[in-house]
Amino acid sequence: GHYVVCGYGRVGERLTEDLIQEGETVVVVDTDEEICASLSEAERLHVQGDAEDEGTLRAAGIERARGLILTLPEDSSNVFVALTAREMNPDLFVLARTIDHDNRSKLRNAGADKVIAPSEVGADRMAQVVLRPHTDDFLERVLHTSALSRQIDEVQIHKNAPLAGQTLAESNFRQQFDAIVIGIIDADTGAMTFNPSPTERIDVGDILIVLGETEIIDALRERVCLP
Amino acid sequence: GHYVVCGYGRVGERLTEDLIQEGETVVVVDTDEEICASLSEAERLHVQGDAEDEGTLRAAGIERARGLILTLPEDSSNVFVALTAREMNPDLFVLARTIDHDNRSKLRNAGADKVIAPSEVGADRMAQVVLRPHTDDFLERVLHTSALSRQIDEVQIHKNAPLAGQTLAESNFRQQFDAIVIGIIDADTGAMTFNPSPTERIDVGDILIVLGETEIIDALRERVCLP
Ligand SMILES: [Ca+2]
Ligand SMILES: [Ca+2]
Repeated sequence: GHYVVCGYGRVGERLTEDLIQEGETVVVVDTDEEICASLSEAERLHVQGDAEDEGTLRAAGIERARGLILTLPEDSSNVFVALTAREMNPDLFVLARTIDHDNRSKLRNAGADKVIAPSEVGADRMAQVVLRPHTDDFLERVLHTSALSRQIDEVQIHKNAPLAGQTLAESNFRQQFDAIVIGIIDADTGAMTFNPSPTERIDVGDILIVLGETEIIDALRERVCLP
Repeated sequence: GHYVVCGYGRVGERLTEDLIQEGETVVVVDTDEEICASLSEAERLHVQGDAEDEGTLRAAGIERARGLILTLPEDSSNVFVALTAREMNPDLFVLARTIDHDNRSKLRNAGADKVIAPSEVGADRMAQVVLRPHTDDFLERVLHTSALSRQIDEVQIHKNAPLAGQTLAESNFRQQFDAIVIGIIDADTGAMTFNPSPTERIDVGDILIVLGETEIIDALRERVCLP
């Protein structure tokens, strides 16, 4: 499934590049002729048109899309498009940017699964730079995967995985995979265990938050996730 | 030392609240009369005036401040104030917000130690929500310390610390502190080791990036950081 990104301003452009870099397919929707010309030149899939029109969303393949990302210049447009797209594809994952965080509940009520306010995220990040500069540097380096071989990622335990039913100690995880489990999301309860102890049991369907090399996490994913 | 925050828009307000919540002292500078009235009402330290005037910065105590955080509405104002403040206090840590990331190098040249573009941070966060939703949730919960007992933090190894000179395995870190070391910044080289192996040696001056309960990290900090 592909992602539809509505609005190709600063945020829309950057996140489109992030997604493409990680191998995702993105269709951009924007009304602006110059922006669409530059998208053509960069060979980026796009539809020139108003995202508030059903026809535009249909042309962007909203009905078979995996997710919709709303970064239109006005929160009111994001609300309108969220409502429209939700009707056209009830299973769609909808992520919306908000300018004014007071509009968060309106966007949630319009069907957005998640709402991000860059001003809040930016402010929290600035506070982190001041309060914990090394932690900030650490996270910047593990989360920006482009040229990096170390990162934080997530893997879900398949029913035939050798780890299923073992405790972390029994699985000898650190030695076996050269990666550490920094969190476990329980399949039954959805509860998150931070910094899990060696006696924590890994069950089918649990999601492990793991810190390790990209290739090692990919290998781990093949061993625990695939049928 | 206190922090001076210039510009009390969405980002300035949020980061001021973040810093105050973590026990820091903040002096806000803003020209706007209504904003300053509401700051008075909330009993927040502030100076009403133009941050581009040396007198305003002096009134905010720039000469003895620990850091300056620039979130003025125009990048050009942030550049100007960075230059002025740097002259008045060469040791100041200067963090600047930029609207247009093309201005990053101008802000760096004006003396900003770190520049954050909320549009970029917000876009990267939105991509992370799409690509690794559980990791995003994990980090949101460990980094937002307010009501939380689990977090990522950093501690520096003091010369009398019992850990100094030991390997991670010798220190029995996980069992002794109920916390895990997810990164080490080497005191000599500044190099960062991600997911350090049990044979990694902890030296005086090294900074450990640690995941654990707040109270446990506080206890750890007392044992390894204080003289
Ligand atoms: Ca379980
Ligand atoms: Ca060393």
